[in-house]
Amino acid sequence: MWKFENNLKWKGGKRGECTADGKTPIEFAVPPEFGGPASYWSPEDLLVNAAASCLMASALFFIENSGVQIESYDCNATGTMEKTGAGLEITGLQIEVSIKLGDPSQEEKLRGAMATAKKSCPVSNALKCPVELTLKVA
Amino acid sequence: MWKFENNLKWKGGKRGECTADGKTPIEFAVPPEFGGPASYWSPEDLLVNAAASCLMASALFFIENSGVQIESYDCNATGTMEKTGAGLEITGLQIEVSIKLGDPSQEEKLRGAMATAKKSCPVSNALKCPVELTLKVA
Repeated sequence: MWKFENNLKWKGGKRGECTADGKTPIEFAVPPEFGGPASYWSPEDLLVNAAASCLMASALFFIENSGVQIESYDCNATGTMEKTGAGLEITGLQIEVSIKLGDPSQEEKLRGAMATAKKSCPVSNALKCPVELTLKVA
Repeated sequence: MWKFENNLKWKGGKRGECTADGKTPIEFAVPPEFGGPASYWSPEDLLVNAAASCLMASALFFIENSGVQIESYDCNATGTMEKTGAGLEITGLQIEVSIKLGDPSQEEKLRGAMATAKKSCPVSNALKCPVELTLKVA
């Protein structure tokens, strides 16, 4: 069993800060669409980042296990929130991953590793909404 | 409908960075328990931060709507991950919120506002696992 423990403090207005021992604080705010100041991460952004970073962590593990060598891993991730009968609801995440291979012949192995990573990603699996992965291999 | 779009880049080893236009990048890494370097946010930490910050955002809205004045809002949040038959699974979040009131007679109103905030929190509602809220009022 693993525990992940963090602190949070309201900084006035619609802003706050997440902290944990030895880590760079993350300043966040209510999204601008809901009256918060721009240029801050929103809670929804943090959720998108959690899913995208967890997929990367999971991917690195299975890529290494498959003996695949990658030169770069980039990702663009989008979360969608909608107003439904249940209120504001996160209805889906789309994660587009671009990976550059040193050896193009490893593409099939890489696609296998990414499919396993997606299935094994604890954050994606913790979400009720669909998480869609698109993989571009260069 | 709202969209939250971010980018992520692998920085080598077990580290990466989340970025979005105009926002301070968030460096993250695989948790130390899984071989990552210490002192970085893990994907699981980001999920805990997403839930805790979303609850705060929701709380500020309902606290203001209830006419309650608060002097401070602090939170300690813990996510639990376990190895189950399904692999690594996020099995629960515990969020402890401490709020200081200017006027102690507003405690009942505050508790009502927080209960509504908890029910309305989009990130908590996006999670399959239980999210438990404890509220301390001073």
